[in-house]
Amino acid sequence: MTPVSVPAGAEFGELETPAALVDLDRLDANIARMATYAKQHSLALRPHIKTHKATTIAAAQMAGGAAGLTCATPAEAGVMSMVSSDILLAYPAIGPKLARLMALPRELTLTVALDSAHAVDDLARAARAADRAVHVYVELDVGMHRVGVTAWEEAVALARRVRDSAPLNYAGIAFYPGHIRSEIVSQDAALTALGAALASATQALEQAGLPPKVVSGGSTPTVWRTHEIGGVTEMRPGTYVYNDRGTAELGACAPEDCALTVLATVVSTSVPNQAVIDAGAKALGREPMRGVEGEGWGALLDRPEVLVARMSEEHGILDLSKTGWRPQVGELVRVVPNHVCIVVHLNDVIYGVRGERIEKSWRVDARGRQQLAVS
Amino acid sequence: MTPVSVPAGAEFGELETPAALVDLDRLDANIARMATYAKQHSLALRPHIKTHKATTIAAAQMAGGAAGLTCATPAEAGVMSMVSSDILLAYPAIGPKLARLMALPRELTLTVALDSAHAVDDLARAARAADRAVHVYVELDVGMHRVGVTAWEEAVALARRVRDSAPLNYAGIAFYPGHIRSEIVSQDAALTALGAALASATQALEQAGLPPKVVSGGSTPTVWRTHEIGGVTEMRPGTYVYNDRGTAELGACAPEDCALTVLATVVSTSVPNQAVIDAGAKALGREPMRGVEGEGWGALLDRPEVLVARMSEEHGILDLSKTGWRPQVGELVRVVPNHVCIVVHLNDVIYGVRGERIEKSWRVDARGRQQLAVS
Repeated sequence: MTPVSVPAGAEFGELETPAALVDLDRLDANIARMATYAKQHSLALRPHIKTHKATTIAAAQMAGGAAGLTCATPAEAGVMSMVSSDILLAYPAIGPKLARLMALPRELTLTVALDSAHAVDDLARAARAADRAVHVYVELDVGMHRVGVTAWEEAVALARRVRDSAPLNYAGIAFYPGHIRSEIVSQDAALTALGAALASATQALEQAGLPPKVVSGGSTPTVWRTHEIGGVTEMRPGTYVYNDRGTAELGACAPEDCALTVLATVVSTSVPNQAVIDAGAKALGREPMRGVEGEGWGALLDRPEVLVARMSEEHGILDLSKTGWRPQVGELVRVVPNHVCIVVHLNDVIYGVRGERIEKSWRVDARGRQQLAVS
Repeated sequence: MTPVSVPAGAEFGELETPAALVDLDRLDANIARMATYAKQHSLALRPHIKTHKATTIAAAQMAGGAAGLTCATPAEAGVMSMVSSDILLAYPAIGPKLARLMALPRELTLTVALDSAHAVDDLARAARAADRAVHVYVELDVGMHRVGVTAWEEAVALARRVRDSAPLNYAGIAFYPGHIRSEIVSQDAALTALGAALASATQALEQAGLPPKVVSGGSTPTVWRTHEIGGVTEMRPGTYVYNDRGTAELGACAPEDCALTVLATVVSTSVPNQAVIDAGAKALGREPMRGVEGEGWGALLDRPEVLVARMSEEHGILDLSKTGWRPQVGELVRVVPNHVCIVVHLNDVIYGVRGERIEKSWRVDARGRQQLAVS
């Protein structure tokens, strides 16, 4: 599509909706708050760029004191190598992805997290062919049961395999405590158990002569308690930069820390007690609040009692049963999404706003699934 | 991101995953089948491009006998004006979208469906300023309760308002029977009720001297029965071009009509009885099968008993409990998604395949939320 311009200083009403807006004051505060926390506890901060996928935001995180960045794909790492010289790929690189990984700038310090001998061997082969050093974290499963090894003898075996596979360099361990959410009866107990698991894994590795230099963890729901988990040296939060309704509900941010909203237009009020906006599943994603029915697909920024109750691809149905407010066709609303990482992934451009003024825009330059052309 | 090329005739293993593949034989058959149906029943076929968002596919639909295209946004209409001179915007254009709508090529025959006086007045004002004729369908709510007027006197009032708002041209009525799905006890009864509703609306309009020239409807679940709905002259199916797991479950296509799959790589098998693939919510979307829990977020093409049981953003967890198959890390799988329109919206490039060979690729050139830059 042909780009169209809006002048800086324009107001929301000049934007085609739906549009993703980022409150720049909230963004700055979110970046600063996390940097301060990491510094205070001597934790290396390596933000996961999955949430914003934009070099402009990554650069702000680096300027704010991040030690490096975390990416999910080699393509993302390629884009982010423009703003950081130290990148962790928190995902095993298998198959054709290895070629893109090895094509990253040679001056980049590159680390890969993995959990299988297959991934070690493939990576070692590619690294040898490219003659470049790659640091490796061995991924542990500490309870989420998604990826990671569950038995510490496996962790030891993988670490040894890495150590013996030059030019790979065994650099530490990684974990993702995504299973510890505030609805667990005792987050304290879960964190204690996590600390114990890490201690036993570390002990097993030390006994095998493979002490982890880096212990990398931290997901947004428990991020502010990372310093309580013994032995952790590095944290990789992503969502904190924008936050969302889900993060606020988990207590990992305040509602007023949510920086990203989706600007939408009321397009129909013909059915009683509802208003239809032009932000549906293609703008908001279909991400539930902790899987609970009836909590909606988003809520209005200024009227949190008004939920996006139903969605089609391009329609969001606002439930007006809990409000006396009756919007007119053409009225603008701002929706706080449940899960901001998905919303960003649906957009190509984000608008930075202060108050109701549009100050700038930036491309979500690390999004984009496939950039391969058949020739 | 920088485009990378793969040669035509390459095999799947050369693609970075996840990647969206379209089986070209199935695609061709799907396009031909619908064109034949429409011709057989003298229905004007106006495919909704929301499913593919690609000019290359729209051109194939036009070549296959489509009378025009349906779009959801003016930006989509702008892209699609390259391949069709007759476009319906099945969505009211409000606010800044009107400027983009009026900037469409003047030779384009443009129709807009709407359901409010506000939308009529805004459109009329813009059309007068641009001095261009715009055809209008009045949108009826025939039971889905999303958009559309529910009382026929309202339909009459809107049609009259359109007629009296030159250069707008009252052209007919539109409806979307998305509420009639196969789980309804009697689809027959629902279609009969729909026919009766349309007849009474048409009668009211005729009595007011506003007979609808076009009666435009049809959604994929009931698309093959459009000819049974009295008075319908035009159909706007979208999903049929690719089909998906949801469409097959509704009985509106056979499982072997599903043309689009997501190619993914097994990246971890460390947790027993599951395999992790690199297609998660950012590749498959989080679209449930008719809202039923436990039906998964997609199923493997060759092993439909293997479901994507859980997802994170970049991880899909295959449940291996119903199969003896135990994949290796690095193995490729193809996932049939639940809702293909969302999957396409998540991709920039689609690969056209025959068998296991990649024949071509095309850009999803009408996707892309915002193309506005702040200058």
